[in-house]
Amino acid sequence: MKVVKFGGSSLATGAQLEKVFQIVISDPERRAVVVSAPGKRHAQDTKVTDLLIDCAKQYLLSGEAPELVKTIVGRYADIAAELGLPEDVIDLIHSDLLHLLEGEKQDPDRYIDAIKASGEDNNAKLVAAYFRHRGAEAHYVSPKDAGLFVTSEPGNAQVLPESYDNLFRLRQQEGIIVFPGFFGFNQEGEVITFSRSGSDITGSILANGLKAELYENFTDVDAVYSVSPSIVSDPKEIRELTYREMRELSYAGFSVFHDEALIPAFRARIPVQIKNTNNPAAEGTRVVAERDNTNGPVVGIASDSGFCSIYISKYLMNREIGFGRRVLQILEDDGLTYEHIPSGIDDITIILRQDQMDEAIEQRIAKRIKEELDADEVTIEHNIALIMVVGEAMRHNVGTTARASKALSEAHVNIEMINQGSSEVSMMFGVKEAQEKQAVRALYQEFFAKVLV
Amino acid sequence: MKVVKFGGSSLATGAQLEKVFQIVISDPERRAVVVSAPGKRHAQDTKVTDLLIDCAKQYLLSGEAPELVKTIVGRYADIAAELGLPEDVIDLIHSDLLHLLEGEKQDPDRYIDAIKASGEDNNAKLVAAYFRHRGAEAHYVSPKDAGLFVTSEPGNAQVLPESYDNLFRLRQQEGIIVFPGFFGFNQEGEVITFSRSGSDITGSILANGLKAELYENFTDVDAVYSVSPSIVSDPKEIRELTYREMRELSYAGFSVFHDEALIPAFRARIPVQIKNTNNPAAEGTRVVAERDNTNGPVVGIASDSGFCSIYISKYLMNREIGFGRRVLQILEDDGLTYEHIPSGIDDITIILRQDQMDEAIEQRIAKRIKEELDADEVTIEHNIALIMVVGEAMRHNVGTTARASKALSEAHVNIEMINQGSSEVSMMFGVKEAQEKQAVRALYQEFFAKVLV
Repeated sequence: MKVVKFGGSSLATGAQLEKVFQIVISDPERRAVVVSAPGKRHAQDTKVTDLLIDCAKQYLLSGEAPELVKTIVGRYADIAAELGLPEDVIDLIHSDLLHLLEGEKQDPDRYIDAIKASGEDNNAKLVAAYFRHRGAEAHYVSPKDAGLFVTSEPGNAQVLPESYDNLFRLRQQEGIIVFPGFFGFNQEGEVITFSRSGSDITGSILANGLKAELYENFTDVDAVYSVSPSIVSDPKEIRELTYREMRELSYAGFSVFHDEALIPAFRARIPVQIKNTNNPAAEGTRVVAERDNTNGPVVGIASDSGFCSIYISKYLMNREIGFGRRVLQILEDDGLTYEHIPSGIDDITIILRQDQMDEAIEQRIAKRIKEELDADEVTIEHNIALIMVVGEAMRHNVGTTARASKALSEAHVNIEMINQGSSEVSMMFGVKEAQEKQAVRALYQEFFAKVLV
Repeated sequence: MKVVKFGGSSLATGAQLEKVFQIVISDPERRAVVVSAPGKRHAQDTKVTDLLIDCAKQYLLSGEAPELVKTIVGRYADIAAELGLPEDVIDLIHSDLLHLLEGEKQDPDRYIDAIKASGEDNNAKLVAAYFRHRGAEAHYVSPKDAGLFVTSEPGNAQVLPESYDNLFRLRQQEGIIVFPGFFGFNQEGEVITFSRSGSDITGSILANGLKAELYENFTDVDAVYSVSPSIVSDPKEIRELTYREMRELSYAGFSVFHDEALIPAFRARIPVQIKNTNNPAAEGTRVVAERDNTNGPVVGIASDSGFCSIYISKYLMNREIGFGRRVLQILEDDGLTYEHIPSGIDDITIILRQDQMDEAIEQRIAKRIKEELDADEVTIEHNIALIMVVGEAMRHNVGTTARASKALSEAHVNIEMINQGSSEVSMMFGVKEAQEKQAVRALYQEFFAKVLV
């Protein structure tokens, strides 16, 4: 049994839905289909999820949003018309949406969550209707009926453990299960969504619960690339990578697959196959627990900008018990998360995502560190990019660091900081944002271009 | 005005004391002399400070230690006899020691501190007597009379700020001041010692208080070497280095100068000159606030063994606010200090000195991290060496990392971890202890041997 998940761009038009149908029907093991809400039909288009959020907010303000309702229902209606589906499914979607919009508004976050989730929910009904229209046995299954229970934090639901046993019972279901992604229900029966792009998470939970042999994630690229195509043209595709490698790459900007979504698959050791709806013949990329290393120590290079660093020095800091812990406490008091803490003897540097900070927060933190910890110097630097060089095989490969830092040096990139823990699945370089692309290209050249020639 | 400090080996015999006298007298600016207790006369000898500690402990147990008292007083008597000094100074030392040994024993730590400190105190009296015997005007000055006040923690005294103004008044003193190192007095008038080898600290405090132009620290090596002579034979001498470079090197095993001793000199920007009592014509090494960079980016390479690492991984650790802080809290609860925290995305490695840990502590900590923080994996590894590559000029030098890691790779050294903060005064490599010497030699070869040829 395979769980197959389709992203929004794979479900944006009737023509796309037909591709989805052909893919599912071509393999009888593809028994559970998880769907996103209809995505963009072209670059300037708006995703249905974003329309729904706007609609919910307008309802909260004014109690109506007729234009938006029309646009949203129109998106489903266009698809249905293109596919020659009877209008009753659109009537159902229309009344469902109006019913939700008239619902309980006391907690705006939960209200918005319920409206947002309808994008996936109604799309699952539409997809099931189309599959049946084409003669397949297909059933929409509600997460509530299936027992997908989650915690109560809107926009950040966490699956509850009993869900897996509940979902296992779906194996008894005849035909193809069409299951909406992105949300579950809390103990009170309210809709709660996962974090953004959370349909990947639903697919992974379902694969775990159903004890599927494979979780196929269909999107709009042929594979995960070893480096961003926006930096290096025509980069090498990755055939196979481990959960950890995927996680390290997605941390620094690889957004093909939601990182939280790896957990349920990882726990059950279910391989995740990333494939292209528009080119299903392409091999795609497989994410697995362990892989053979065939092609050099590095599997991918990711980079992300928008970091800042807080440099703190204090003579003999190293002797002070609790210094680091107290610095982290000051950050935590402001709700800040940090990324890394490279250190010298009497200095530490804390790397954070700078979108968490504004000038007031920066000043408050610098002041507290100076005064409460009696630091000699506190300096905040902005616009740092982190570059991750990722590969499990680096662990046993003497000289990867040398190759990487030599490549950067020859490209005249100044390394602001380096961080490499004893796991050695990745190596992190901090550089100035202005040198980010230069650095990534130099590393790609070193670890991939040479191999390919 | 210069403050001159002599270490124990420079004061172990009459012949050594004569060298000290000649050095002091040769420069009329050498107005304040800080002395250690007599040190080792040869490799198998015992330092007077160690004899005094044994003596104090035996007194605490049995109320007497006649053999040790005889040995200790004998050490001073031998020096006095060699120099032809009258016996009255030895009688004074003998009665002072007996008086201290019969003193208040309620707080054993303070009792031991008082006995320990007598090594320096009595040696200052002896040195002053010898200088006078040779016709110089020289006066023993007690830290109590001079107002060198410190905090009350035995064996870890911290100077109190008012001491500096008190000491400034010593500028009025005629002739040469002979001042015992290693201790001060707390507000209650009790002797409290600095940490071990604390005479360096006294010299630095005195230099600061007296507003000296230079603090000369005489020891038994010609200079600070760029790498340990026990690893590389005949290493390059360092002519000049900054306080920060000195601090980073001394952290990882360069023990020429006590690292706490740099602070008072550093605060007053007084240069520290390290020279050899046995070869005063040698240029020595100067420690300054800023220096010109003339000779490559690296000034020295230090290494130290005896570290262990705690590797902790947890999927999506990176998203958890407070994870790092809670790990550090667990260590702090056991009184442990850590050195560095290199990290991956969902893992951190904590480097600690392993002499703080035993099996029980390790198990307790690993258990708490696993249970309280729900970590996926906690692994403790032993016998790690840290190698520090130090140099202020690394900051502006693209490619130092590449050179260092390439040198290690060519020497087949596997880099277990790297840590380089944005200060870039140093770069840290963690390697297995078995590869420590190999690694240091390879780095020395890269950064020094090539320059020298």
